[in-house]
Amino acid sequence: MSRSIPPKLLRKIRALILDADGVLTDGGMYYGPTGEGLKRFNVKDGLGLRLVLDAGLDVALISGENSELLKRRAEKLKIANVFVGVEDKLQTLKEFLSPRNIGLDEVAYVGDDLNDLPALNAVGLPIAVADAVAPVRKAARWVTSRKGGDGAVREVCDLLLAVR
Amino acid sequence: MSRSIPPKLLRKIRALILDADGVLTDGGMYYGPTGEGLKRFNVKDGLGLRLVLDAGLDVALISGENSELLKRRAEKLKIANVFVGVEDKLQTLKEFLSPRNIGLDEVAYVGDDLNDLPALNAVGLPIAVADAVAPVRKAARWVTSRKGGDGAVREVCDLLLAVR
Amino acid sequence: MSRSIPPKLLRKIRALILDADGVLTDGGMYYGPTGEGLKRFNVKDGLGLRLVLDAGLDVALISGENSELLKRRAEKLKIANVFVGVEDKLQTLKEFLSPRNIGLDEVAYVGDDLNDLPALNAVGLPIAVADAVAPVRKAARWVTSRKGGDGAVREVCDLLLAVR
Amino acid sequence: MSRSIPPKLLRKIRALILDADGVLTDGGMYYGPTGEGLKRFNVKDGLGLRLVLDAGLDVALISGENSELLKRRAEKLKIANVFVGVEDKLQTLKEFLSPRNIGLDEVAYVGDDLNDLPALNAVGLPIAVADAVAPVRKAARWVTSRKGGDGAVREVCDLLLAVR
Repeated sequence: MSRSIPPKLLRKIRALILDADGVLTDGGMYYGPTGEGLKRFNVKDGLGLRLVLDAGLDVALISGENSELLKRRAEKLKIANVFVGVEDKLQTLKEFLSPRNIGLDEVAYVGDDLNDLPALNAVGLPIAVADAVAPVRKAARWVTSRKGGDGAVREVCDLLLAVR
Repeated sequence: MSRSIPPKLLRKIRALILDADGVLTDGGMYYGPTGEGLKRFNVKDGLGLRLVLDAGLDVALISGENSELLKRRAEKLKIANVFVGVEDKLQTLKEFLSPRNIGLDEVAYVGDDLNDLPALNAVGLPIAVADAVAPVRKAARWVTSRKGGDGAVREVCDLLLAVR
Repeated sequence: MSRSIPPKLLRKIRALILDADGVLTDGGMYYGPTGEGLKRFNVKDGLGLRLVLDAGLDVALISGENSELLKRRAEKLKIANVFVGVEDKLQTLKEFLSPRNIGLDEVAYVGDDLNDLPALNAVGLPIAVADAVAPVRKAARWVTSRKGGDGAVREVCDLLLAVR
Repeated sequence: MSRSIPPKLLRKIRALILDADGVLTDGGMYYGPTGEGLKRFNVKDGLGLRLVLDAGLDVALISGENSELLKRRAEKLKIANVFVGVEDKLQTLKEFLSPRNIGLDEVAYVGDDLNDLPALNAVGLPIAVADAVAPVRKAARWVTSRKGGDGAVREVCDLLLAVR
């Protein structure tokens, strides 16, 4: 893990891939009487992602959870690529990249837990949120200073935009 | 940015304009299965705004989001002026001020993110919440010590009321 | 304001009176599309209040808000005395105490904001939560170390129970 | 209370028993207009519990609250053993262990408040979350560094998995 990233690497990135729970949220799973009720996203992450999309990068959300409301948040942010209920995130990532002719080395991936490790270990710019579990922070090239759901994704967006 | 404001400037202020998400809330966007479900406002901000209204200032909320529930919160606080789904906040601000014969130099505006910058740069008293993004904090004349949704607006209200 | 309270004063207390928003909650006002949707209470406060009731003290909630869900929380905690939409909290407090032959000097009152001041200034044991506004903390005989909604009320309960 | 636990004791543990409110959640009791509305669980705790189940340990939730939504969370995590509305947690624990031929000395129990004390005092590995009340922290063999609902249970899971 290193705290500074060469601008050359940042400029190479063409796709930003995000885990959802614990990255776009603080990991809170709100349950109501009939099952999961709410997730809490962050408005500053939202503006950052819009700017990243405007800059021409591909953005995708890949979640192990089978969550309808993640799709609602993605619609709001105009993120067309949302994969839910994913068992093997690296496999899904590869299938997403292939038709777009984007290489794994051109991908920034943000994760927080063990099921993100295979994808993190495969991409050019693996990023962990501040409150990721230890093995994920260790595998990351960069660790955000903010926690998941508290602006971590905005930090990543600002980083990518700074060289554009 | 300066931490102290001349009382003369504070006494000049006739209108308090607030961004919503990240200012009246902590930026949390709660999504339920059918889309956005909740926003979390702050009871102490509410009492502060009531006192500011009682002191005769104009108060308006200007939000980039198209949020029905912001109107519900405004109704509760008896704030009649709520603009949602606003693309150009400075333009909306000018249209609000014009029939009231209030000048931009008589306005305190509280913001937290990039889309607040044009309005912040135009008003007499630009204010950033503690957790605003860096360019907003830089553009502000005053930065609150509390974060958005955690009493930042109450701090602004107390500041305006102290000279009245 | 003093940090230690003579056991003699604590033993004299026969009624515990609580403001709701900002005392039993962290001041968060959750709004849904149709108006206020949720309040967040604290499980440890709940157990503390049950023990205080078991010890024979009278407990009442007095809120300036007109909130149905506060009644639901009170039912759960078996607190029979809930006053909502109260304009003059001191007046309501007096009407509560009178038929019970409890004097104002036998009351502990916990508050967080300006509308609690008249009642706080009248009772024998005025208490402020850690994140109360400055005038309330100044008026209090004791300030909890925890914030409203984060166990402040449990602290008060433990204090009252320690001498019983 | 001690901060280090002999691996021998950890290897002996065959069942992990969890209180719910304040352990799997941060103790927040969200009330809506019609009563309790939501609880906030943690995604990292969820992954930890799945790994503990996969490692062959028995897991059970024992709650004093009569909460339907706790059952929903348990279903999601594939935890079959959920006891709600429990008055005497130690009694329920014994009834759970008996048919499984698991001794109290083979149990890790995680609690946060006074009603957990009898069970904590009976088991081989009593654990308190960081924000448990003082008597519970005192009764515990180990205190997590994270608070309830903020990954305390994941810490316990990682501890149990480290020796397996």
